[in-house]
Amino acid sequence: MSHQFSGEEREAVYQVIESRRDVRAFRPDPVPERTLQRILDAAHHAPSVGFMQPWNFIVVRDRATKARVHDAFLRENARAAEKFEGERGRLYRSLKLEGIMEAPVNLCVTCDRTRSGPNVLGRNTIFDTDVYSTACAIQNLWLAARAEGVGVGWVSIIRHEDLHQIFGIPEHVLPMAYLCIGYPREFLDEPELQRKGWAERVPLDELLYYERWGVRPAVDAA
Amino acid sequence: MSHQFSGEEREAVYQVIESRRDVRAFRPDPVPERTLQRILDAAHHAPSVGFMQPWNFIVVRDRATKARVHDAFLRENARAAEKFEGERGRLYRSLKLEGIMEAPVNLCVTCDRTRSGPNVLGRNTIFDTDVYSTACAIQNLWLAARAEGVGVGWVSIIRHEDLHQIFGIPEHVLPMAYLCIGYPREFLDEPELQRKGWAERVPLDELLYYERWGVRPAVDAA
Repeated sequence: MSHQFSGEEREAVYQVIESRRDVRAFRPDPVPERTLQRILDAAHHAPSVGFMQPWNFIVVRDRATKARVHDAFLRENARAAEKFEGERGRLYRSLKLEGIMEAPVNLCVTCDRTRSGPNVLGRNTIFDTDVYSTACAIQNLWLAARAEGVGVGWVSIIRHEDLHQIFGIPEHVLPMAYLCIGYPREFLDEPELQRKGWAERVPLDELLYYERWGVRPAVDAA
Repeated sequence: MSHQFSGEEREAVYQVIESRRDVRAFRPDPVPERTLQRILDAAHHAPSVGFMQPWNFIVVRDRATKARVHDAFLRENARAAEKFEGERGRLYRSLKLEGIMEAPVNLCVTCDRTRSGPNVLGRNTIFDTDVYSTACAIQNLWLAARAEGVGVGWVSIIRHEDLHQIFGIPEHVLPMAYLCIGYPREFLDEPELQRKGWAERVPLDELLYYERWGVRPAVDAA
């Protein structure tokens, strides 16, 4: 599999990365089971420390279950909204931050902190590498979905305890992500938070250092 | 940008996901600066909670700096190796787990826990969403590199404290990943840990639940 990617293939990969969006508005059309399986398989091909594959995926289509999750979101979002005041608070309240009920598929992605036992190759130094691995799996899923024309939205305004309870997730398993999955009303040209004036993309140059924290080429040249 | 991906483009995305490897053996050929910039820009297009973009990238080419990191790895790996005994210990010691000195570029990817201030949209409930975001950025980088024919290896056997010290990284910034980047000697057909008999890929079916933790289709059908 020492496949070399052509210029067109490379471009497709960059385009999928750049046009991926956090989607909160979905069409009701169902996601075909085969498409969903391909997307999940992409997640499963993520890197994992010591090949521990700590993830599980709970596929949710039941309306009553979605409604319980949505209630958990509403409670938590009311609490979060209080943190933002004045103009910022008004803007916060105007944002649509989830598509739990409209998305045909919801997905809870978990990280089993005990998988492969107490000694995992590469995890003796940094315990959270299993969490990093699971986030990589979510990004694989997100990109594969974008390539399929399927939108994904990550709802991070839900308490872990609520997800533990609603889905019967064991104590040692972390419900890392709650995703809404379906065909989007549209893929926006830019992130919604940028479009609405909440935040802007930082120029890459400002995030790059060379050899040492805080050292930029301009500083070197001076 | 409501780009629709063709069948070929979709295949390219899946192929890049499936053929990505953790690379530990590099050729000395330099990585062109433009290629590196494209890969870093892919990382920067990751999703981030509240669009906080918590990452920084420290590009390392200096041999003396690499040598200090390599020393930190050797110390930590000696400690880790003690956890594995007998046949497993022999196998552990035979594995090449990093390519710090051979890779033309090393990259420290960090997560600033304070970026965007104390109240970040979507982060009031789960504080670690910034870490999840940074892991997504690393996965973007890894896939873009694979599309470019560039190998990436994540060395997780280095203490955060050592990276803080070597690179002068502030206390509030987490050095999440230390990556080795360069043209690989080869892209293996399967993960190295599987090839060497350390671990195997779990069938996806075993990781999938429906509606509730532990519930599989077979159980539903019964």
